[in-house]
Amino acid sequence: MKTLSDDLVTFAETLADTARDVIRPHFRTRLDIVDKQDESPVTIADRDAEEAMRRLIEDAYPDHGIFGEEFGAVRTDADYVWVLDPIDGTKSFVTGLPVFGTLIALAHRGRPVLGVIDQPILSERWIGAAGRPTTLNGAAAKTSGCTDLAAASLYTTHPSMMDTDDRRTRYDRLVEQVKLGRFGGDCYAYGLLASGHVDLVVEANLFPYDYMALVGVVEQAGGVISDWQGKSLDMDSDGAIVAAATPELHRTVLNILG
Amino acid sequence: MKTLSDDLVTFAETLADTARDVIRPHFRTRLDIVDKQDESPVTIADRDAEEAMRRLIEDAYPDHGIFGEEFGAVRTDADYVWVLDPIDGTKSFVTGLPVFGTLIALAHRGRPVLGVIDQPILSERWIGAAGRPTTLNGAAAKTSGCTDLAAASLYTTHPSMMDTDDRRTRYDRLVEQVKLGRFGGDCYAYGLLASGHVDLVVEANLFPYDYMALVGVVEQAGGVISDWQGKSLDMDSDGAIVAAATPELHRTVLNILG
Repeated sequence: MKTLSDDLVTFAETLADTARDVIRPHFRTRLDIVDKQDESPVTIADRDAEEAMRRLIEDAYPDHGIFGEEFGAVRTDADYVWVLDPIDGTKSFVTGLPVFGTLIALAHRGRPVLGVIDQPILSERWIGAAGRPTTLNGAAAKTSGCTDLAAASLYTTHPSMMDTDDRRTRYDRLVEQVKLGRFGGDCYAYGLLASGHVDLVVEANLFPYDYMALVGVVEQAGGVISDWQGKSLDMDSDGAIVAAATPELHRTVLNILG
Repeated sequence: MKTLSDDLVTFAETLADTARDVIRPHFRTRLDIVDKQDESPVTIADRDAEEAMRRLIEDAYPDHGIFGEEFGAVRTDADYVWVLDPIDGTKSFVTGLPVFGTLIALAHRGRPVLGVIDQPILSERWIGAAGRPTTLNGAAAKTSGCTDLAAASLYTTHPSMMDTDDRRTRYDRLVEQVKLGRFGGDCYAYGLLASGHVDLVVEANLFPYDYMALVGVVEQAGGVISDWQGKSLDMDSDGAIVAAATPELHRTVLNILG
């Protein structure tokens, strides 16, 4: 894949910096929490951060599209589309747990070419862009070398993601075979995977703004990420995700889930 | 309850400082992970931190007892007994998630009179001691005023804690009625409860070194903590824990669980 231009990577950092500035003052303060249809809490910080990022994109790249969690889609037929989730892990955010994240992806003709996972409170930022190694705060990040399911650690944000009997059965079969399974984490778990601390993240029912930014971070760190059938992720994926530290581990998990 | 002496509170801080210094260099490094009988990963940091704390106690208070997760019990018939868990949340620790904690409790004739929850990586320390308000890094911490189960947020480290059908049935009945339920957190969730960000923590199968330090932190912040029958916690409790932001919320939960 062609190396992404420095300008676009720098601009993605500017977006993340801006979201941080907006989000930080709201953490661990009492906010009015608005329930959306899906019941996830959404904060003022979420809306203001997306607005701020959208303004920057409109100014710098008026021909790029934008697809955001809060304010929907514009120009998604453009070659480049920014995919934004200002606060992934709103339940962590509203309970004061600093492991939510700001997700910023850039898609080129529907395929992710850049991903940012930014933790505004801990000041941790993973960036993975086409043709470049993933970095955590500027230092190269590398997935673990884990190829053995029995030695693997697995994260899943919440078991309720497995919302069909078939999905739950396959997932439970996977959980029985790993060394260590944990719930929680949201996007932060994919950052930990990129840095070699977690070996697997398996989820379902994610939206493009939840998963598009993960692709660059995981792949450029040496990991593999796909849907449960092994297909590469794009804007039209079904939101069931397998991220693994190594191709071998990824294949093993697909054999159980797919 | 009599106000605990300044000396003992200061000494507890020294223990926590010492554990921090030992633990920090090991976080997010590759450690040899030793499995104990209960399968939880235990790190070198865990052992070294407990050894360091025990040495300090032996020097400063040679007549006090010690009950630690790693090295067991000495003089537990003494009036004062220190109850230590250097790394509560070892699974978080080994996967690079900075929400584990060091737990330090002081029991007087079996009843907890001081508790420390210390997060070494984020430098966050909750202290709750008899006759003093709970503090987070020196500033007063206060539980939320939540009295309504339908508005409450609930944390539980892992659903597998509910290891009997009866316990799981009662727990599931509770989960259905809260606003927001999350897994994960370990001791850190009780700190968030003391600071008013989380309204409930419900767990089971904890050991004294897991729960004794929580009591002071929760109670001195205005919360209520007990076993599932509503009994105060001591060294002989069964390890099933309900922590709530208010007495009203605590009563409501006991009616469901008890």
